[in-house]
Amino acid sequence: MVRVGIINVTGYMGAEAARLLHGHPEVELTSVTGRSAAGQPLGEVFPHLGPLGLTVEEELGEVDAVVSALPHSASAQALLPYIERGLPVLDLSADFRLRRLEDYEPWYGAHPAPHLLAEAVFGLPELHREEIARSKLVAGPGCHATAAILALAPAVRHGLIEPDMVVDSKTGISGAGRSLGLSYHFSEANEGVSAYGLSGHRQLPEMTQELGALWEAPAPRITFVPHLIPMTRGILVTCYASLRQDADLGKDAVARLRELYCDFYRDSPFVRIVDQPPSTKQTLGCNDCLLYPTVDGRAGRLIVVSVLDNLVKGGAGQGVQCLNLMLGLPETAGLSGLALYP
Amino acid sequence: MVRVGIINVTGYMGAEAARLLHGHPEVELTSVTGRSAAGQPLGEVFPHLGPLGLTVEEELGEVDAVVSALPHSASAQALLPYIERGLPVLDLSADFRLRRLEDYEPWYGAHPAPHLLAEAVFGLPELHREEIARSKLVAGPGCHATAAILALAPAVRHGLIEPDMVVDSKTGISGAGRSLGLSYHFSEANEGVSAYGLSGHRQLPEMTQELGALWEAPAPRITFVPHLIPMTRGILVTCYASLRQDADLGKDAVARLRELYCDFYRDSPFVRIVDQPPSTKQTLGCNDCLLYPTVDGRAGRLIVVSVLDNLVKGGAGQGVQCLNLMLGLPETAGLSGLALYP
Amino acid sequence: MVRVGIINVTGYMGAEAARLLHGHPEVELTSVTGRSAAGQPLGEVFPHLGPLGLTVEEELGEVDAVVSALPHSASAQALLPYIERGLPVLDLSADFRLRRLEDYEPWYGAHPAPHLLAEAVFGLPELHREEIARSKLVAGPGCHATAAILALAPAVRHGLIEPDMVVDSKTGISGAGRSLGLSYHFSEANEGVSAYGLSGHRQLPEMTQELGALWEAPAPRITFVPHLIPMTRGILVTCYASLRQDADLGKDAVARLRELYCDFYRDSPFVRIVDQPPSTKQTLGCNDCLLYPTVDGRAGRLIVVSVLDNLVKGGAGQGVQCLNLMLGLPETAGLSGLALYP
Amino acid sequence: MVRVGIINVTGYMGAEAARLLHGHPEVELTSVTGRSAAGQPLGEVFPHLGPLGLTVEEELGEVDAVVSALPHSASAQALLPYIERGLPVLDLSADFRLRRLEDYEPWYGAHPAPHLLAEAVFGLPELHREEIARSKLVAGPGCHATAAILALAPAVRHGLIEPDMVVDSKTGISGAGRSLGLSYHFSEANEGVSAYGLSGHRQLPEMTQELGALWEAPAPRITFVPHLIPMTRGILVTCYASLRQDADLGKDAVARLRELYCDFYRDSPFVRIVDQPPSTKQTLGCNDCLLYPTVDGRAGRLIVVSVLDNLVKGGAGQGVQCLNLMLGLPETAGLSGLALYP
Repeated sequence: MVRVGIINVTGYMGAEAARLLHGHPEVELTSVTGRSAAGQPLGEVFPHLGPLGLTVEEELGEVDAVVSALPHSASAQALLPYIERGLPVLDLSADFRLRRLEDYEPWYGAHPAPHLLAEAVFGLPELHREEIARSKLVAGPGCHATAAILALAPAVRHGLIEPDMVVDSKTGISGAGRSLGLSYHFSEANEGVSAYGLSGHRQLPEMTQELGALWEAPAPRITFVPHLIPMTRGILVTCYASLRQDADLGKDAVARLRELYCDFYRDSPFVRIVDQPPSTKQTLGCNDCLLYPTVDGRAGRLIVVSVLDNLVKGGAGQGVQCLNLMLGLPETAGLSGLALYP
Repeated sequence: MVRVGIINVTGYMGAEAARLLHGHPEVELTSVTGRSAAGQPLGEVFPHLGPLGLTVEEELGEVDAVVSALPHSASAQALLPYIERGLPVLDLSADFRLRRLEDYEPWYGAHPAPHLLAEAVFGLPELHREEIARSKLVAGPGCHATAAILALAPAVRHGLIEPDMVVDSKTGISGAGRSLGLSYHFSEANEGVSAYGLSGHRQLPEMTQELGALWEAPAPRITFVPHLIPMTRGILVTCYASLRQDADLGKDAVARLRELYCDFYRDSPFVRIVDQPPSTKQTLGCNDCLLYPTVDGRAGRLIVVSVLDNLVKGGAGQGVQCLNLMLGLPETAGLSGLALYP
Repeated sequence: MVRVGIINVTGYMGAEAARLLHGHPEVELTSVTGRSAAGQPLGEVFPHLGPLGLTVEEELGEVDAVVSALPHSASAQALLPYIERGLPVLDLSADFRLRRLEDYEPWYGAHPAPHLLAEAVFGLPELHREEIARSKLVAGPGCHATAAILALAPAVRHGLIEPDMVVDSKTGISGAGRSLGLSYHFSEANEGVSAYGLSGHRQLPEMTQELGALWEAPAPRITFVPHLIPMTRGILVTCYASLRQDADLGKDAVARLRELYCDFYRDSPFVRIVDQPPSTKQTLGCNDCLLYPTVDGRAGRLIVVSVLDNLVKGGAGQGVQCLNLMLGLPETAGLSGLALYP
Repeated sequence: MVRVGIINVTGYMGAEAARLLHGHPEVELTSVTGRSAAGQPLGEVFPHLGPLGLTVEEELGEVDAVVSALPHSASAQALLPYIERGLPVLDLSADFRLRRLEDYEPWYGAHPAPHLLAEAVFGLPELHREEIARSKLVAGPGCHATAAILALAPAVRHGLIEPDMVVDSKTGISGAGRSLGLSYHFSEANEGVSAYGLSGHRQLPEMTQELGALWEAPAPRITFVPHLIPMTRGILVTCYASLRQDADLGKDAVARLRELYCDFYRDSPFVRIVDQPPSTKQTLGCNDCLLYPTVDGRAGRLIVVSVLDNLVKGGAGQGVQCLNLMLGLPETAGLSGLALYP
């Protein structure tokens, strides 16, 4: 068994990583940290994690690999010693997602370890499976970014669309984490939908970086607007882009499009092209991303609907998927649980 | 007091019209019909309407004006006698929303009274206040269409944007009415978001008609995708369109944009330009539409967020607003109630 | 118009009082205070209250009557000057609900103005209509207590039940107010039910005081357990008590029981005895309390289900109802709005 | 691998059994039936079950054990052939829960196979572990009954309480199944709580039978009222009973009570005595039942709060637990997944 430690298990992302690792056949979660809860049994902080029998510590004990669920900046700092010791490191924060410092700084400020940006790999196995397998430092992508990049990658790669793209995301409230705030107060959030991040959201540069790398055309010009939805988990992203005049999808454009998408994800066990518009509910608690690509023939526009669980494929589950690749384990190990429905 | 009757009070839209008319100072609701419930006290069908003391009837009694909450086709048929008698008629169905038969038929099939299309007025007071006041036959717009048209009208009128527009709508489940269906079953709809109408939604032609009439440029090329949200009431529409190269909003584009919007709706009591992204919750039960126009400077795109209560400003409330105009009453009569918050 | 001021408008109870007074035909809300928001337009704190056009002040301006929505202890302190000036005062806190100091202190600590307890009236119009009308100092009852007392009062008054009673309450989360807390965080509260106050809840002594005063039998021995429900507004209380052996309800016990309840509330416009088990939803935003009394014949037990909106009949609405009585206005003035449904 | 078949996989209970068996290390789900969906891939009926790769059949294929998720009456009929062939049969319906025909008939009508009642075992492993292990016909208990019996059994066994008990249950809407009905329509059920079954609920006789068998005192006189809560999954039951005068729990009654409960469930891996009032959310998707026993010292009453997931420990999970015992497998096999939180 590979011994894994989680840094900052006391947020939702860390706790979800713990839940998933509990069921992992080849990895054992042996150590967890959490700033405010050090010394407490994990089952006091999160009763559902009681069966793990762990105590929250100040520092990780002896482990073979590390997962960080710290916020950006703090994460890179905490990971440095492990990176230097050459341990496999999976960072769920944004610190190592952007390859270029000039993409990072405008959104996040100074980077604590800019020299490592070049060696880190963007942890989206569907685009970077082999680099992840060869890497010791992998950055789990953002939840919106995962959904949007998976939705648009095949169309971009095939040059089907114009660089102008709209990404409209609807997310459950767990994405905002466990910290308190009026926007996440039940009485304020329930029975309401609202947009946020209208002056720019930090996951935009991930989308631009990853989609831009898939073609030689001009960098994508993406407008991304996330919306807070009164539900706990799940992201649904609706992507819009004009089809290029020279994109010849033939008579049955939708069928051809689906074919291209199926081909693109042929070897990706967690991406499923579905033939009915999916609900976020169909991915609750599991590592799937469901894609529904279609065409608005009237307006000549590609529409792709993408759903996933923000804490699983959009976070801790994708992290475990990357860790599996890094450790030479089957990509799906510990991730075979079905969605909880209804 | 003007005596008003509601045809088909037994759905959510009819019931909401009844609730609003109960508090109207110059109108009295004197008669209500409902196919399946004829003979029953209204308070049995909807306990909250018990205080009205009405019984559901087969046919309307003597009234001075009629509101129809029937579905399309049935609505036009039921209204014909009243239209012929010259009574003021407010139709909440889609039957009289589209001026041209060729816009109606592809979406709804044969029209029961095509000769009336020319004289009907699209019941959006913010665009057609005076025509409504002069008309005897007014069609209440669709809920998504109301939100989208109000969001985009100023930008279209001022020629700020390209004809390519994306309208992404998020709607509470009451919009689907009271009929049963697996998609609206609590256990299936709760904690899930899904897109629908991806092959085309019937409120699209309303948007095209109304926005197209505001400029001389090519007809708008709108992609409209509605999404079902796990909440009861409320619509939030996010509209996207590229700013025209020659649209000169000056140095502070957002401030200038807000100014244009404020001006456009200066005399419209129910449209408020807000300076924080609004939540649907802020319009619960009231007739307001809140607009938040802004600019994505990176992508050169206009974004407008628009929220309203689908059963009030998106339905029965806007119907009462039109009726007020038709009857020569103050536009706000019976509609001064504040939103219920939280 | 009577000029009314609200102290502490910035919580949910104060805001709801403001919403209701906005529609009141004979009262004008002219002044509002709020500790943290002094100087801000009310519409910034609560956008739905924007149309009131008020600014939050440090101190109330010139008013004819005062409503306090402060927490206990702070409330009595803030109200003292107005009470001394002889203004009609309606206190929504717990400070003046309990007539005896020895009932107050174990639950709330030292009382800031114990000399006033004797003259304050418990603001439940259905039991104390005339005293309220004669009083200058009325205490709005707690939300659970209102539902439970209304549910049990007729049975107690008629000596139908044993003194042993169980009050199981289910409440929406707005009852916890607008302050932040992990229990009210959307992601923690949604899709979960939990009991609280298991070691004793402060609204228990109100129930004991008011029900105990209705008979000469031993003081009621009430177990009261409230539960947090994933919804915003509404309380449903289920009350259980063994029927006395000598309680002869005749052959059709349920019919006779309903008759007694209808009689008891004959002159109470806001209490309705319903013949189907009610949903909290039927009272959303309105001042009704719906009661469904029945008998479990197998176990010889009375069951009464009681629903109301915790912020209206369980708070600000009942406050306005009391204020109407105190000011010599019709009891229902400003409270005729129907529930919002669905 | 033991081959198991599920009869009627197309409801929520059957689907949940399929989800759980998918992760079972020693059982393989090889065949599923469903009346209306025969011939369809299971993944069309329930997308989340697609990875099982099964097709819904008219009749079960060759299997070693059978789980039925049919409604009562139909279930016994469908199971008869398998029972006669001596296969291990786990029935999730009510058909074999009540040992005496006179307890069954008043609630369910004629029984299709009354001769089998005597040999069937009530499938609550915490009370009947050994009988289940020896039986070929086990009846999974009702969801409310499971929660209530586990909550009260230790107190009844130790003679701590009077026979008069109140069981107030709050249940998520999935308990009502997948069939359509106005009460389960999102817009009607959301943001509302209501009581049902007030004239008697079918799970009452299970509680009376099982608790009555634990002591020699008079049969329990239970009032049971379930309530519909706006959430998908989960049951919280609050149980109330007067403590017997001679029940000597000593000075620290709550501590002693907890001790008795811990002892009682010492060998039961899925019952956990918790020291904070639990939320249903802590058992989402897992087979735990959390119990919080306490005492209302003022009223001399025992209160026990019990939470579980109605589809897991209240249904399919408990079914798998019984099946494990019947097949000689570890009781926890396939049931080690942690709750999904948040």
